[in-house]
Amino acid sequence: MRTIEEPISLEPALFQPMREVRVGIVGYGTVGRATAEILAVNAEEIRRRTDGVSIRVTRLCRKGARSSEAGVNGVAIVPKWEQVVGADDVDIVVEAIGGADVAYQVVRSSIEQGKAVVTANKALIARFGEELFALADKKKLPIGIEASVGGGVPVIRAISEALAADRIHAVYGIVNGTANFILTQMENHGLEFAQALRQAQEAGYAEADPSLDIDGLDARDKIAILARLAFHGALSTEDIRVNGIRQVGATDFHYAKRLGATIRLVASAERNAEGINVSVGPWLVRCESMLAKVDGPNNAIFIAGEKVGTQMLYGRGAGGNATGTAVLSDVVQIAKHVARDQTMPNMLSGFHSSEKLTLSERIHPVPWYLRLTVADRPGILARVADTIAHQGINIDSVVQEPYTSKERLSFVVTLEPVGEPTVNRAVETINSFDFMLEPVLLLPMISAAGE
Amino acid sequence: MRTIEEPISLEPALFQPMREVRVGIVGYGTVGRATAEILAVNAEEIRRRTDGVSIRVTRLCRKGARSSEAGVNGVAIVPKWEQVVGADDVDIVVEAIGGADVAYQVVRSSIEQGKAVVTANKALIARFGEELFALADKKKLPIGIEASVGGGVPVIRAISEALAADRIHAVYGIVNGTANFILTQMENHGLEFAQALRQAQEAGYAEADPSLDIDGLDARDKIAILARLAFHGALSTEDIRVNGIRQVGATDFHYAKRLGATIRLVASAERNAEGINVSVGPWLVRCESMLAKVDGPNNAIFIAGEKVGTQMLYGRGAGGNATGTAVLSDVVQIAKHVARDQTMPNMLSGFHSSEKLTLSERIHPVPWYLRLTVADRPGILARVADTIAHQGINIDSVVQEPYTSKERLSFVVTLEPVGEPTVNRAVETINSFDFMLEPVLLLPMISAAGE
Repeated sequence: MRTIEEPISLEPALFQPMREVRVGIVGYGTVGRATAEILAVNAEEIRRRTDGVSIRVTRLCRKGARSSEAGVNGVAIVPKWEQVVGADDVDIVVEAIGGADVAYQVVRSSIEQGKAVVTANKALIARFGEELFALADKKKLPIGIEASVGGGVPVIRAISEALAADRIHAVYGIVNGTANFILTQMENHGLEFAQALRQAQEAGYAEADPSLDIDGLDARDKIAILARLAFHGALSTEDIRVNGIRQVGATDFHYAKRLGATIRLVASAERNAEGINVSVGPWLVRCESMLAKVDGPNNAIFIAGEKVGTQMLYGRGAGGNATGTAVLSDVVQIAKHVARDQTMPNMLSGFHSSEKLTLSERIHPVPWYLRLTVADRPGILARVADTIAHQGINIDSVVQEPYTSKERLSFVVTLEPVGEPTVNRAVETINSFDFMLEPVLLLPMISAAGE
Repeated sequence: MRTIEEPISLEPALFQPMREVRVGIVGYGTVGRATAEILAVNAEEIRRRTDGVSIRVTRLCRKGARSSEAGVNGVAIVPKWEQVVGADDVDIVVEAIGGADVAYQVVRSSIEQGKAVVTANKALIARFGEELFALADKKKLPIGIEASVGGGVPVIRAISEALAADRIHAVYGIVNGTANFILTQMENHGLEFAQALRQAQEAGYAEADPSLDIDGLDARDKIAILARLAFHGALSTEDIRVNGIRQVGATDFHYAKRLGATIRLVASAERNAEGINVSVGPWLVRCESMLAKVDGPNNAIFIAGEKVGTQMLYGRGAGGNATGTAVLSDVVQIAKHVARDQTMPNMLSGFHSSEKLTLSERIHPVPWYLRLTVADRPGILARVADTIAHQGINIDSVVQEPYTSKERLSFVVTLEPVGEPTVNRAVETINSFDFMLEPVLLLPMISAAGE
């Protein structure tokens, strides 16, 4: 039985006076504008859900803005970032310009001038995170980076807070919505890569220069950040092996379908006996796997912990509103402290270690998909099979669609499980054969890290 | 171009002295023991991932413990909770006894004695959350409840932090792993409810008295907590309509399959024009929906925000290790503050409002599944159809498996979309007919809230 010794007053901290929190936004494109607009529209909802924290945009900046321009709530849009970062009426600077040049100066200068920072900038954090977090720590200021990976999906919090007490085995998933949109268009409509890319551009998902998305560079920055948080060590993006999706064709989706699978661009960071395997590349995934079910511009990130098992977080990975909501999740969390004049030192410890992670190849055995495109003549399969046997690898199946032409014939060989270094040796030899019209497309056949 | 004005020292807060954080665990069953063991095994990993926070279990308590018993790290297990809550060498009390009686005293007394609290106790928080959070606020102490819903799935953080700036439309999903295990066993192996329940008990998923799980009461406590956090208002569990899964039979899975669907126990809280609809009950969900793909003892929680879209969080919803990891996620977050002697007031504002949520029925139109079990005779379908027509509802289909017996005949009627109050009136009339052998099993045919 419970006993209540004293009556409890139900008027807690909510009536304690708090000061207004002022936000300056540098960069007034898709993300900056969405952030400002959501903050304005939801100001009352935020106040309600935080027991009274008031947050207001006081400064906006866009390069080249004319003196007459105004944004949300009639706030003037100024052309120079120094006018935001140096302003007395700004507590939190939202950096929304992208890239790693001016953005670096904005974030560094903000922290030096005593301002908390929130950024969605994966390129900046992947490159300069260690330095910026060290500076922020010295100044006892937080940097929020939830929006840098997964758009609205709270993967940074999941790794750094929810799994703080577990040993993480692997973090992997679909972190680039543009590439995923292209692949699912190819899957669903039998398109070639170029057609699907054009559709993605028309739908506003891909830039005029789509390289960051389709060559895996955006995903590389994101997995670099996740690997740092999960495995608590330094790595530079240049050390991460990246394969994009340009080489994936309609024919690969035909073959994948025959194998009960589809193709997804997966970024992964995984612990193995030799270190951490960090990579970005297309995987052949079984149709019934969770990865295969992620379609269109969505993101899905899997986190495998020793004790907690495998979790999945799924949602919209890009777009102004999803990214703006993630930016504001950090703004609100920081604002709860600012409103009460409390310091909030950085809680993202992953960026504090300057000790390098030991990177490793994918050494645990997995099955592989090899698509070869050749000028047909007798004896090709024999030479390929011989090369594979020479590495001690078993062939699982050979598949050839009947409709391919003799001048440019595609066929697929699938291999029984073997480590990446071994399969790479076989592929290197095969690529040197004169009948090969283009390099082998080599895809791991895995539906979840560690399988 | 970036310019670096001063060299940056890479030795931040990690070398600043911090004190050890001491944890007392009350309740040494599955969750308490797992929590203690993970903390002991992962102490070094936690230290690394938090830049040096040391956390140690100093007190353990289990009712009836003998004086000679010892737990993790040789810590003596004491029989009285007061010996933990009142101890000087405890900073954070983990309440792991369950129920809402002694647990209430433990949590209240801990806060009164200046200790932070972490609990996995949904029954306690659903009933006494408002009072306990108010007390904690007065004392400027945190209560961590991540483990109370979704086991290892970080849904509390997702709602209260990640979506802090968005207006939430709906929170719904599968929050009881035992019920889900039973339903997926029925689905996959054609079992009757009683057989599947027995298997769940043999597998250790269901208690000897399975009522909390299969009658939806556990799910009710959880959705009460989520609704509070998402909609920031008070509600009592008694006001939440609950249907369990006892009435669901093998025949329903047959009919569901013919309709391209399956059955899941869903807890949902959803905003509509009249208020918030909060309920627990089985839904008929399309096979290709995400809800249908959640199998075995897993949990999946969907959060639909106005700006961020719909997110899904998926993972293990129960078990000592998953729950222990979630408990420790709160312990670690609190410990980061304790180690630096910082106060960490409660950040879960949802429990501060004592204003009641306006609860509403499911008023937006959805299609319905009605399974009737009757003693067959001429004219039954005519009377049922007439009753349905009388409420202005259109019948979508009538399905009857050929193998049912005449003495006990089951058939299914599916209805075109209509609001819950209307369908309830029809069902009430049908239930009064003398040919009805048991009440209609009424399931909404929806695969996502808001559809």
